[in-house]
Amino acid sequence: MVGDDGVRTDDDTRLLHSGGKSTPDLLRRRAGEAESAPDAVVLPGSHEQVCAVLAQCAEHRVAVVPFGGGTSVVGGVEPERGGFSSVIALDLRLLDGLLEVDAESQTATLQAGLRGPEAEALLSEHGFTLGHFPQSFEHASIGGFAATRSSGQASAGYGRFDGKVVRLRVATPNGELDLGRAPASAAGPDLRQLFLGSEGALGIITEVTVRVHPTPQEVESEAWSFPDFATGAKALRLLAQEGALPTVARLSDEAETMINLATAHDVGSGEQTGGCLMITRYEGPRIAARPRVAELLAEAGGSSLGAGPAEKWDHGRYHGPYLRDALLDVNAVVETLETACTWSRLAETCDAVRAALTESLQAQGTPPLVMCHISHVYPTGASLYFTVACGRGEDPVAQWMRAKRAAGDAISRSGATITHHHAVGVDHRAWLTDEIGELGVQVLRAVKSTVDPSGVLNPGKLIP
Amino acid sequence: MVGDDGVRTDDDTRLLHSGGKSTPDLLRRRAGEAESAPDAVVLPGSHEQVCAVLAQCAEHRVAVVPFGGGTSVVGGVEPERGGFSSVIALDLRLLDGLLEVDAESQTATLQAGLRGPEAEALLSEHGFTLGHFPQSFEHASIGGFAATRSSGQASAGYGRFDGKVVRLRVATPNGELDLGRAPASAAGPDLRQLFLGSEGALGIITEVTVRVHPTPQEVESEAWSFPDFATGAKALRLLAQEGALPTVARLSDEAETMINLATAHDVGSGEQTGGCLMITRYEGPRIAARPRVAELLAEAGGSSLGAGPAEKWDHGRYHGPYLRDALLDVNAVVETLETACTWSRLAETCDAVRAALTESLQAQGTPPLVMCHISHVYPTGASLYFTVACGRGEDPVAQWMRAKRAAGDAISRSGATITHHHAVGVDHRAWLTDEIGELGVQVLRAVKSTVDPSGVLNPGKLIP
Repeated sequence: MVGDDGVRTDDDTRLLHSGGKSTPDLLRRRAGEAESAPDAVVLPGSHEQVCAVLAQCAEHRVAVVPFGGGTSVVGGVEPERGGFSSVIALDLRLLDGLLEVDAESQTATLQAGLRGPEAEALLSEHGFTLGHFPQSFEHASIGGFAATRSSGQASAGYGRFDGKVVRLRVATPNGELDLGRAPASAAGPDLRQLFLGSEGALGIITEVTVRVHPTPQEVESEAWSFPDFATGAKALRLLAQEGALPTVARLSDEAETMINLATAHDVGSGEQTGGCLMITRYEGPRIAARPRVAELLAEAGGSSLGAGPAEKWDHGRYHGPYLRDALLDVNAVVETLETACTWSRLAETCDAVRAALTESLQAQGTPPLVMCHISHVYPTGASLYFTVACGRGEDPVAQWMRAKRAAGDAISRSGATITHHHAVGVDHRAWLTDEIGELGVQVLRAVKSTVDPSGVLNPGKLIP
Repeated sequence: MVGDDGVRTDDDTRLLHSGGKSTPDLLRRRAGEAESAPDAVVLPGSHEQVCAVLAQCAEHRVAVVPFGGGTSVVGGVEPERGGFSSVIALDLRLLDGLLEVDAESQTATLQAGLRGPEAEALLSEHGFTLGHFPQSFEHASIGGFAATRSSGQASAGYGRFDGKVVRLRVATPNGELDLGRAPASAAGPDLRQLFLGSEGALGIITEVTVRVHPTPQEVESEAWSFPDFATGAKALRLLAQEGALPTVARLSDEAETMINLATAHDVGSGEQTGGCLMITRYEGPRIAARPRVAELLAEAGGSSLGAGPAEKWDHGRYHGPYLRDALLDVNAVVETLETACTWSRLAETCDAVRAALTESLQAQGTPPLVMCHISHVYPTGASLYFTVACGRGEDPVAQWMRAKRAAGDAISRSGATITHHHAVGVDHRAWLTDEIGELGVQVLRAVKSTVDPSGVLNPGKLIP
């Protein structure tokens, strides 16, 4: 079905498909663990080949783990066998075409295997950008963005990935779906929203038609300082509620600000100490909002730091994961987790998660540094993104998992969502029932039984 | 379960729950047809009573048709029995509370039976507005807005109703769902989107938490004239794609403009003949966008007509349905239908629908006047709303149904959605399989079997 070159069983290829990019993934890989490698890696070259592979896998009861950029940090690409004797990774890298650009409607149809930079390069030939720049941008794929409800650093201006999607093409063992005909519809439930966030458990997304934006000709940046996190958060709330937003709006708490400034030796405003750093960046038509944004931020207690720290952030915006690698080398454990909630519960949720992480890691003898930032804002609430650094315990995977469990419980108790943009995968499954209820889980199972009756699609992910 | 006063079986009450407000509904009611009246009307007073009634109806196999404002124009509240011997209308009018206002997060929790004006009155005590003003505003309910994915005349500024929903509480015969914890989430598929647009077939929405807006202190209006519909449509596209939008943006085609101006005797700009009328209205913070909007509209070929015609439109914005009643009295048939598609297919879709309606009604000996407007715009496309007027044939219901079928086929062939904001009900069911595919329909059936195993919820609606 996929040609001789479309099936790889060599150890190197299998190892490269043995998991994602969470800190536990890296720790396991550094420890030489490879039990979870898939039996084979299959590379379909077309939507039709994906359909054919799925039909065969369903018939022969082979588990199928879709693989895009492999950047999941929640176990989403773990090659779990479920009840099946074999498992393949379905690597979508050959689905790398830009199928159509509709310049008038500002939409583009992209194949699922395209990586962020490749998609941008193809779109830029037509004068467009996707405007989707998560930290995983360099490696992650279009299909992965859709399947995990990804959100990028420029979400204030360009929106979340799920909000960009006009149309989805999905292959399932029970046939295909082609969903989405209009910018908005009242033709019943929006079934695209079942497959956005379906994490390969309900089908393989092979094509996505998304809204694109004219490549911005001008970019402006400005950093701001706020006396504390609550004051900065309130300022972001006022921006989001008035709809006066930059393209990037990002507020670090005191701890993250301290670390950022300590590592930013070449920032002009050397006198800045303490407080909370906010990065704003304006692209294209968003520049028109800058005067109003600046007015609101100043009224809300912010002081401009000029462009310097914002440009510094921009240069390092994809470096986080690499830094994590370097820190692992020196026996520090660094990991991230995130959530979102309403503005009125933001402070309480932030405190609860910070306390849970601190308490758990302190009890394990490795008191952590917990940093937090807000990088995705909405009129009704915002995300909270935590970075945790601590010394390495005897069993660092177990050490982190205990802290993660404490944080997840705190998030769930606070009434916040267990994940704003990292997806469920394996790691968040335990909290999903709490979030959508037992009947919600039954609904997901019923949908799965309909599209994947044999259950071969990404076993052990998403659905409790 | 609902008290003595909670069950009505008198003929007047049953007649008032015998259908919606489409022209065929009115024609049938004027002809004295009442076969479709429900056997009883039940008025639950709480979420718990809704749950109890549903459990009883499932056990005793009684069909349940939820009834809010009764303004469906697609047969959505037809008291169909399905395979059951009896049917009740579940009138939600007693669920009329504003349960919570979160001023910081700008959200409010409303019960499903609240009508538009009641909801606005309750919210205005807290300084907020919902910003949702469909033509059915005076009668339609919060639950209905959610269950049908309603869109209001101010959607350019305040968004569609489905986009406002943060949280939904849903009663089903198989238990309840409480969905939505954050402004955005990556915790799997967005199950709210299954119940938004579920039209009473997958559950009864009893509470909705929605985003609200500070009541605007200032309102400005301006009408514009464009040489033709295509030029005006392009102007709207430029506004939507740049994100420089008024609160209301509405463009009439040449025929609708002619009728509007002919009936607007007191409009100052008496010299205006022909062309296409665009209404713009700015509320609160949207006023800041007015200079840029005006600049773009003028560049795109528009001429300002001042505030007059826009204020005229505002005064008559809910009058359409009453006018239809008066026209029925003089033997004219007037009905509306609508769709949405991408900008690049807008002209073609508009022409195809107009041609289908004209051809069908001409062939029936009643050549129509077909008017069209765009009243909901998005970066990637827009809605098209058609008003059709013609002489009354011998069997006006059959006459319209033939024209409607021709229009629906034209919409479907054009790749547009069968409905942008009227929902599926009975009338659009025939086209839903075309729109979401056979597997999409199977998914809906699987969800229905999970939440409503006996199938008592709103039989014959939505799901083909």
